[in-house]
Amino acid sequence: MCELLGMSANVPTDICFSFTGLMQRGGETGPHKDGWGIAFYEGKGLQAFHDPAPSCDSEIARLIKNHPIKSKTVISHIRQANVGNICLENTHPFTRELWGFHWTFAHNGQLDPKLFDLPLTHYHPIGTTDSEYAFCWLLGQVREQFPQRPDNFSEVIELIHCCADQLRALGVFNMLLTESEYLLAYCTTKLSWITRRAPFGRARLTDAELTVDFCEETTPNDIVTVIATEPLTDNEQWRKLQTGEMIVFREGVQEPLSRCFGHS
Amino acid sequence: MCELLGMSANVPTDICFSFTGLMQRGGETGPHKDGWGIAFYEGKGLQAFHDPAPSCDSEIARLIKNHPIKSKTVISHIRQANVGNICLENTHPFTRELWGFHWTFAHNGQLDPKLFDLPLTHYHPIGTTDSEYAFCWLLGQVREQFPQRPDNFSEVIELIHCCADQLRALGVFNMLLTESEYLLAYCTTKLSWITRRAPFGRARLTDAELTVDFCEETTPNDIVTVIATEPLTDNEQWRKLQTGEMIVFREGVQEPLSRCFGHS
Repeated sequence: MCELLGMSANVPTDICFSFTGLMQRGGETGPHKDGWGIAFYEGKGLQAFHDPAPSCDSEIARLIKNHPIKSKTVISHIRQANVGNICLENTHPFTRELWGFHWTFAHNGQLDPKLFDLPLTHYHPIGTTDSEYAFCWLLGQVREQFPQRPDNFSEVIELIHCCADQLRALGVFNMLLTESEYLLAYCTTKLSWITRRAPFGRARLTDAELTVDFCEETTPNDIVTVIATEPLTDNEQWRKLQTGEMIVFREGVQEPLSRCFGHS
Repeated sequence: MCELLGMSANVPTDICFSFTGLMQRGGETGPHKDGWGIAFYEGKGLQAFHDPAPSCDSEIARLIKNHPIKSKTVISHIRQANVGNICLENTHPFTRELWGFHWTFAHNGQLDPKLFDLPLTHYHPIGTTDSEYAFCWLLGQVREQFPQRPDNFSEVIELIHCCADQLRALGVFNMLLTESEYLLAYCTTKLSWITRRAPFGRARLTDAELTVDFCEETTPNDIVTVIATEPLTDNEQWRKLQTGEMIVFREGVQEPLSRCFGHS
């Protein structure tokens, strides 16, 4: 199993605090030592880092902690390998272009080998993980149905939810996915989230001795949502997603979804 | 104009020496201060860094200099913006997936706005540069003609050469392109290369006070080719590409090309 971390915010925000907690789980407080990656959006642009080495002693991880990159949309992943060797091409998150957008995907869980019978169309995996295959299939489905980006993005969200349900039928499928603006989180077993906004308070990491007073780091209009496999702080109220539930954030705020989701 | 740097080697090799020279040109000895990027392959895996800040004072550039990443195939680019704002999505090199390979592209030059009339098929630009548009068109052409990777890669090389000739008809098109194994270099105005192999000697950078004795860094079987917009050292013999010439390297060694290139 792996650990997922995502962020959606209405102002460029650094993810250092949450990242510090997550990175500890990469070989220090957790067993997820088989590489890690993080993708930051800056507008439509993407700055991604991948490292097949354990995150807790990665030079790149140290750089990110010491020289914060501010972003409105972030996806990160630390890996404990099950399907696929430990190597760079198997390191999440994975990225493909659709409609002139970088789509970024990270997965926690394991899927039945029947997954590999699903037909691929436009996108093909570079590595050998079930995760990247699932992403290629899912994004191919979106592209088949929507050769152009539709005006109403909620149709896309609905399709992705259907595809995620199909993947969940093959095993454990916890997912973070974004095209820069919308951050989608789908849960099978473990995914929690929290939205921080004024009045901001103090937060204390579960995995490292670190407390931050967000009051000092933010302005009153900031809205920042963090999603993680397990709550990263032990003095705040995180919400847990249900099996089969998908939630979507834009500018840090949860999007209302049109579909009535009765799949759990 | 921008500066290109590429490397092809038969053993994982660090590009620190050449990179140190190139980075100086990013705002220090050269005017190319509008961002930079570098892509390292590790097998089929890709580790890419993009920074819209000048390379000469970039934290990420420092990391790469101080913690060398060894790779057999590298493409780097520092930018002096002409078409397209200075922002992350306009920062080379650009990457797209074809046949389950990361293709990476960097361009030096400027193309006529007629470029934007060329039809795009599978790949769409995320930013607004002529370079990324040209890449999307070119890779789309490859995909149209070769939906699967052909056994004989020289057919692909031939097609890319034809496409590059078409782009050169629209202006200045100096290009580096790779799918991990083959490194292709196409020249309109400025591109030079050198292959280093035993017996290795000393090399002295043009842009920084640095000399390296490759003898101490290598084994007798190493073959390392470096390609750059301008020669990076002033005590070695670099070869200059001709207008319309394309050369291809694999494992550091120049590939014989089947086609008779009479387009210059």
